[in-house]
Amino acid sequence: MGSKYQKSLRISLPFWALILEIALILVFFFFTSYETPSKKLKLLKTYPAFQDINVMAVLGLGFLNASLRRYTWSGVAFNLFTLALGVQWAIILDGFQFSFFSRKIPINIQRIILGTMSAMSVLISSGAILGKVNLVQMIVMTLLEVTVFRGAMMLTLNFLDGKEYESMMQIHVFGAYFGVAVAWCLSGPELNAAKEKERRATTSSLFTTLGTLFLWIFWPTFNSALLDQPSEKETAVYNTYYALAASSVAAMSLSAATHSDGKISMTHVHRATLAGGVAVGVATNLIYSPWIAMVLGLLAGMISIIGAKCLPECLNRTIGLHDTCEVHSTFGLPALLGGLTYIMLEIEQASWASFSGVGFQVLVLASPLSLFMAMGLVGGVLTGVILRLNLWKAPPAAKYFDDQAFWEFPHLAVGF
Amino acid sequence: MGSKYQKSLRISLPFWALILEIALILVFFFFTSYETPSKKLKLLKTYPAFQDINVMAVLGLGFLNASLRRYTWSGVAFNLFTLALGVQWAIILDGFQFSFFSRKIPINIQRIILGTMSAMSVLISSGAILGKVNLVQMIVMTLLEVTVFRGAMMLTLNFLDGKEYESMMQIHVFGAYFGVAVAWCLSGPELNAAKEKERRATTSSLFTTLGTLFLWIFWPTFNSALLDQPSEKETAVYNTYYALAASSVAAMSLSAATHSDGKISMTHVHRATLAGGVAVGVATNLIYSPWIAMVLGLLAGMISIIGAKCLPECLNRTIGLHDTCEVHSTFGLPALLGGLTYIMLEIEQASWASFSGVGFQVLVLASPLSLFMAMGLVGGVLTGVILRLNLWKAPPAAKYFDDQAFWEFPHLAVGF
Amino acid sequence: MGSKYQKSLRISLPFWALILEIALILVFFFFTSYETPSKKLKLLKTYPAFQDINVMAVLGLGFLNASLRRYTWSGVAFNLFTLALGVQWAIILDGFQFSFFSRKIPINIQRIILGTMSAMSVLISSGAILGKVNLVQMIVMTLLEVTVFRGAMMLTLNFLDGKEYESMMQIHVFGAYFGVAVAWCLSGPELNAAKEKERRATTSSLFTTLGTLFLWIFWPTFNSALLDQPSEKETAVYNTYYALAASSVAAMSLSAATHSDGKISMTHVHRATLAGGVAVGVATNLIYSPWIAMVLGLLAGMISIIGAKCLPECLNRTIGLHDTCEVHSTFGLPALLGGLTYIMLEIEQASWASFSGVGFQVLVLASPLSLFMAMGLVGGVLTGVILRLNLWKAPPAAKYFDDQAFWEFPHLAVGF
Repeated sequence: MGSKYQKSLRISLPFWALILEIALILVFFFFTSYETPSKKLKLLKTYPAFQDINVMAVLGLGFLNASLRRYTWSGVAFNLFTLALGVQWAIILDGFQFSFFSRKIPINIQRIILGTMSAMSVLISSGAILGKVNLVQMIVMTLLEVTVFRGAMMLTLNFLDGKEYESMMQIHVFGAYFGVAVAWCLSGPELNAAKEKERRATTSSLFTTLGTLFLWIFWPTFNSALLDQPSEKETAVYNTYYALAASSVAAMSLSAATHSDGKISMTHVHRATLAGGVAVGVATNLIYSPWIAMVLGLLAGMISIIGAKCLPECLNRTIGLHDTCEVHSTFGLPALLGGLTYIMLEIEQASWASFSGVGFQVLVLASPLSLFMAMGLVGGVLTGVILRLNLWKAPPAAKYFDDQAFWEFPHLAVGF
Repeated sequence: MGSKYQKSLRISLPFWALILEIALILVFFFFTSYETPSKKLKLLKTYPAFQDINVMAVLGLGFLNASLRRYTWSGVAFNLFTLALGVQWAIILDGFQFSFFSRKIPINIQRIILGTMSAMSVLISSGAILGKVNLVQMIVMTLLEVTVFRGAMMLTLNFLDGKEYESMMQIHVFGAYFGVAVAWCLSGPELNAAKEKERRATTSSLFTTLGTLFLWIFWPTFNSALLDQPSEKETAVYNTYYALAASSVAAMSLSAATHSDGKISMTHVHRATLAGGVAVGVATNLIYSPWIAMVLGLLAGMISIIGAKCLPECLNRTIGLHDTCEVHSTFGLPALLGGLTYIMLEIEQASWASFSGVGFQVLVLASPLSLFMAMGLVGGVLTGVILRLNLWKAPPAAKYFDDQAFWEFPHLAVGF
Repeated sequence: MGSKYQKSLRISLPFWALILEIALILVFFFFTSYETPSKKLKLLKTYPAFQDINVMAVLGLGFLNASLRRYTWSGVAFNLFTLALGVQWAIILDGFQFSFFSRKIPINIQRIILGTMSAMSVLISSGAILGKVNLVQMIVMTLLEVTVFRGAMMLTLNFLDGKEYESMMQIHVFGAYFGVAVAWCLSGPELNAAKEKERRATTSSLFTTLGTLFLWIFWPTFNSALLDQPSEKETAVYNTYYALAASSVAAMSLSAATHSDGKISMTHVHRATLAGGVAVGVATNLIYSPWIAMVLGLLAGMISIIGAKCLPECLNRTIGLHDTCEVHSTFGLPALLGGLTYIMLEIEQASWASFSGVGFQVLVLASPLSLFMAMGLVGGVLTGVILRLNLWKAPPAAKYFDDQAFWEFPHLAVGF
């Protein structure tokens, strides 16, 4: 049965991937062109940010998903594959959205950065379903998720008067809940049989730490890349840095506090170290002093660890959810905290013409967060249902979390 | 016999390396100086590119060569040693070439970038002979190869009217065929006995993936660093990015297609993911639309995988070639494809005064590619013959692909 | 007894860490603010240097300390924790020092860079005591060492007419001797029992190599970040690059020379590759030609390897010092060489009004080096005495160099 599944992947994966790549090339052939040289002046200024974000997407999120003992290869390599497809698709969607009537979409670096960030929503979500799907299913999910995410962004920009920066920062809450919803559709009792393969090992954990540290270092770029004003960019960098520093302290110390023997869990550290960067994202424009960012980072680290400690067991028992890399507590909960902080800071800083409008104001302010969360959940469930189709020849549960299902391995039995 | 070899390395390696380093210092003492402050204005603009290329050379190519199970330490460390020597040698050669009559060679960052790129030809070639030579032989090869490469560049610039950028982009075809030619001279039937040690292992493959990803991220800098015009730089960045994205998709999907059970080979992924960046190098100025870069990336990925699948066995049987890290299919074949594309695009974009000149035109256009390939092959064979001399005390075949021949190891028997 | 220790850490670590973090937040609340937008113009220029230095601190020094076979997790993670705390503390100290009477300390990127560099003194020192202390002791040491270091900088700037750049470059000599002094206080005969756990393994050595290479690549940024003039920055970059290149050659070749079988020691390579960057730091302004930097790099590599070969055994026997990661030969000895070079170059370049003043001149020039070394040693001994207090519940010797004492591990017994 195992080999039958593999044989079919031999045909279906290249078939779907190449069809899609050729379709993308045709769209690029008909609809895109490089900007004329006269407009090409900003590259040198934006290129470093482009690279930092690439390091985060390729190395950071790639190795962050490499923590499963028997699934390190797939974690890193599937991440690159998903990103490469997702960026191309996002650039096309983005182009059609903004220049629907002009025939040619101009390609510039700002658009590739936006595309990379949009594709990162898939990389975030894929942490939840890691090891439970094959590459064909990843292709389907990439196309659907990027489309839904760009749709949510378009709605926010056009109907909710949101700014591009603030919409993009909802990526964490969107990616987390999309991933959780897909994982929920794919979860079943058979997953508990694979517990052994899910354990972390020393070396794979070090690679995950490497990914975490890449994200930690370059997160200030992520939070500041889409801001226009240099002074806004600068505040975003400082806020993110202080929040991440406070998160790191919280991560190490609280992880010891939640363990009965006072031992620190590396998984907690991977989750909570980044929580500050996630939480500070949406509100960074409103944070006027470092102490707010530090408090936010401390709280985000706490919430993330408490979430990682309590939620998996609980959600698994009640609704049968299996979230492989715990994207819920890594990205979802800190992003919710960040969304709440955004609302509170907006209200605090607003000039109160009438107190009666507070309720309405809160509703308006909460609408982008709610929209992204709702579209993430609904889109995720729909995607999950589609991914369950027999058409994609999903791997059997016995092959879950196992590189051997996808990779030609050296004959060494030991592994590492 | 093994220990006898080691003892001799104890004297010969420090002897040759220090003699050479002292000679280099003397040349620098007599012939170089820093530029006067008035000319030092461009550093801040070029320094990031300098670092990106260093990351590619040190981390990227270093870890790319770390895939052999028992040879990871040597792969990474010998790479740094070769680079450190090669850059110093290349800067001297480069200096004498351009300012032969003035006594002092001015040192500036542009010259160090050129030197690093020239030294990268050795790093590319060394993938073919990895594990079959000792460090003294690496020193000899570094000096010879950098000299031949700078010679080929000088010939192209002076007699074939080539541009510096285009000549440097021939580094892949030169490096690959130089390495293959050296490897051919060093190959013998005894190599097949070492098959067991050549196998990849999970962890060392992850380090190779890390190297691949560093190269993937920073390749756009490599392809754009030597271009002067910001608009040319920008197009080179986009073309490289799109080609790499298409290659990554091709790498994962086609690797599954060529395996009888539909399994993906990590070695293929390491090879083919980068093929797009190699192929797009020479022609990047002529590629006016992203779809051409994407088609090129897709084809390069295909060729690279087909090459990696068929060539090693075939070349090993017919001409007894043993190419350790398959630089032929990683760099050689995609670079040939890039060279052909360059010729085709030049012809397509030329204004045809007379159709009769096409044949001559093609000859002229093909001359740099042929020159670099020919000088790579001839220089490689000569170097290979020199490296076979008993003088260098090459390691015996039983010590091939084995870190233990060179490194003081912890007494742990297990390995990793 | 082991579990009793752990239980206590469960309460004391979160207690001290959170108390401290909350105190830091309160200080930031009362005393800091972001600069007004009008002053925020330099970010884009300094941000890349800020990131490079972060890569060096987080990835470079983090993985450099990951070489112990059973202590890789702690090496990397404790490094981030120490850095996060140290930077916040250094920014506060720095702020009070320069603007004691104005109520608000303005936060800008230059100050965060200075804070990160000051905190790196702790990261350097922690190599000497790695595996012998717990996280609470690390917190205490971080606070004390950053305070002493900023104190030494203040003394140099105010009383010895030193420049900020030159004082900061004394970080290596300060960090090394502070660490050695603390390690000397903590060393005891029981350490020899832990020899087995101290051995390096293949994979953890590769991670250390990764850290070394990150430091190698970005060291030119470290040595040039605090210089103001672009031409000085540029010379610092070149000098550092050439010194590092010569060190790498020296590292590989001399390590083979000092081994009876001509084998290279990876530990030597980790130490000596970076020696050039350390040695060239203080004197970089005075080095007017690349050959001086290369000679310095070569000598520094030699001294570092001879130190690593002879000193540990010798110092361990005579004064009972146990320096886990040999920071003495990695940072201490090359920094002393650099300090001597600085004095010699200053004397050579001085205009000799009277020859009689040479002795006095030498004393003046040697005073910053002596001050930092003395304050490092005295501060280190005092810190060591404080760290021996029972209050901090230091780990018992049986738990030294063992991740298992701090980390919740997967149940895999094998590890690697």
